[in-house]
Amino acid sequence: PHVDLKVGLDSREALVPLAEAAVRRGRVVGVLVEFDAGMGRVGVVEPNSALELARLAESLDGVRFDGLMFYPGHIRVPASEQGPMLEALADRVARFVDCLSDAGLSPDTVSGGSSPTLWNSHTLPGLTEVRSGTCIYNDRDMVELDVAGTQDLAYTVLASVVSVAVPGQAVVDAGSKALAKEPFRSSGDGFGVLLDRPAIKVRALSEEHGILDLTDTDWEPRIGDRVRIVPNHVCVSVNLQDHLWGLNEDGLTRVSLEGRGR
Amino acid sequence: PHVDLKVGLDSREALVPLAEAAVRRGRVVGVLVEFDAGMGRVGVVEPNSALELARLAESLDGVRFDGLMFYPGHIRVPASEQGPMLEALADRVARFVDCLSDAGLSPDTVSGGSSPTLWNSHTLPGLTEVRSGTCIYNDRDMVELDVAGTQDLAYTVLASVVSVAVPGQAVVDAGSKALAKEPFRSSGDGFGVLLDRPAIKVRALSEEHGILDLTDTDWEPRIGDRVRIVPNHVCVSVNLQDHLWGLNEDGLTRVSLEGRGR
Repeated sequence: PHVDLKVGLDSREALVPLAEAAVRRGRVVGVLVEFDAGMGRVGVVEPNSALELARLAESLDGVRFDGLMFYPGHIRVPASEQGPMLEALADRVARFVDCLSDAGLSPDTVSGGSSPTLWNSHTLPGLTEVRSGTCIYNDRDMVELDVAGTQDLAYTVLASVVSVAVPGQAVVDAGSKALAKEPFRSSGDGFGVLLDRPAIKVRALSEEHGILDLTDTDWEPRIGDRVRIVPNHVCVSVNLQDHLWGLNEDGLTRVSLEGRGR
Repeated sequence: PHVDLKVGLDSREALVPLAEAAVRRGRVVGVLVEFDAGMGRVGVVEPNSALELARLAESLDGVRFDGLMFYPGHIRVPASEQGPMLEALADRVARFVDCLSDAGLSPDTVSGGSSPTLWNSHTLPGLTEVRSGTCIYNDRDMVELDVAGTQDLAYTVLASVVSVAVPGQAVVDAGSKALAKEPFRSSGDGFGVLLDRPAIKVRALSEEHGILDLTDTDWEPRIGDRVRIVPNHVCVSVNLQDHLWGLNEDGLTRVSLEGRGR
């Protein structure tokens, strides 16, 4: 009773057992019908399918139709270039909202947004909730997309140089098990950059080793030097840690990551 | 005293503090000098550099020169096509062993190998230890490299179909936080295949979602169906789990992963 549980779904097969389980527990669960905003991952494609699910939710005990949700994960261009994609998204959101409203099921909640669209989501007509996660920490991708500046990077992986034996590179003790091997989606290559020397990329990753590309720098790292690496995609890097060290004016605090691995 | 600790290293900067720390603890630590076998990651490049480090190890208290180590991570072709690369590797190993032996520092240990070279490493003259890890479980890459057959796959990620809303695909609840987003290195695309339907690939991964490509199959998955996914690279997928379920003739056993995140 202390939890206002809402479930996003896009199928009858998810909705019906959810309603049955809620009835068994004497609870009512809010339902957000998810629609595909253009990413082509999850969510119903046609407004009529959303309407069918909304009607079914209204007709079942144990659930309550709360509204719509979507994730515009297909919009991955800099904030200043998002105009045409946002207009198409606004049209698509309106089609779903109108279809439901015309049938007397006007959605109380219209939940959407993402970190790449963080500074533009408020311009979408009818949106009642902006969901974004990456912006808590930001990463190399968010800087490339003009969502964040270097001063907004709240997460780095601290690594030590462990080998400079092969000319033109330095090897650090942070590999794909610390940074996550995610390609740089915005443009260019590498699996991360140094916070203090952003021209230096992590050229390659194996599990426990990251290779810094030194071809474009005069910097000559020595074994034992510490570097702070900004990963391409912070979400999957955080998920690899058991805890973080948080830094504020009072110093360092160890922060446990309770969601990791769950 | 219960632990016979050996450390692989490729620099004076790692060796000297190691020796000092061992002396402070009244211990003697074995040193394996690592050389670059062709991967271009860590390890000294020239035999003379290995000899210098071996001599330094011999001259310092707290450490003992035990031999050589290398990792032939550059050999990633099927076992039957590895001949020329293995011959070049054998030559390179011999150059390092001979250089040390000629100087009276014949290495007791020559430690090398990898999972892709698992069935050929014994043909390398002078090798005293084969190190390979992936072969404990095997993965899509090992099958592609003829290191393992489907019957040797000891690790899969059990996932549920959660959405079939977008035509031509099915979405499962295993994404990059369960499978790891590692490109298929051998050939082809995708981030994994189904164990029972290996023609069906995981076409795309986001954090909590994997997208199965259904364009080349008659199979029509339903929401709630369970699938077993073989990841491209098992090492980084295992590292994402808190525990595994082991299956033998006595049934299921929960296996904790103590090394995860360490």
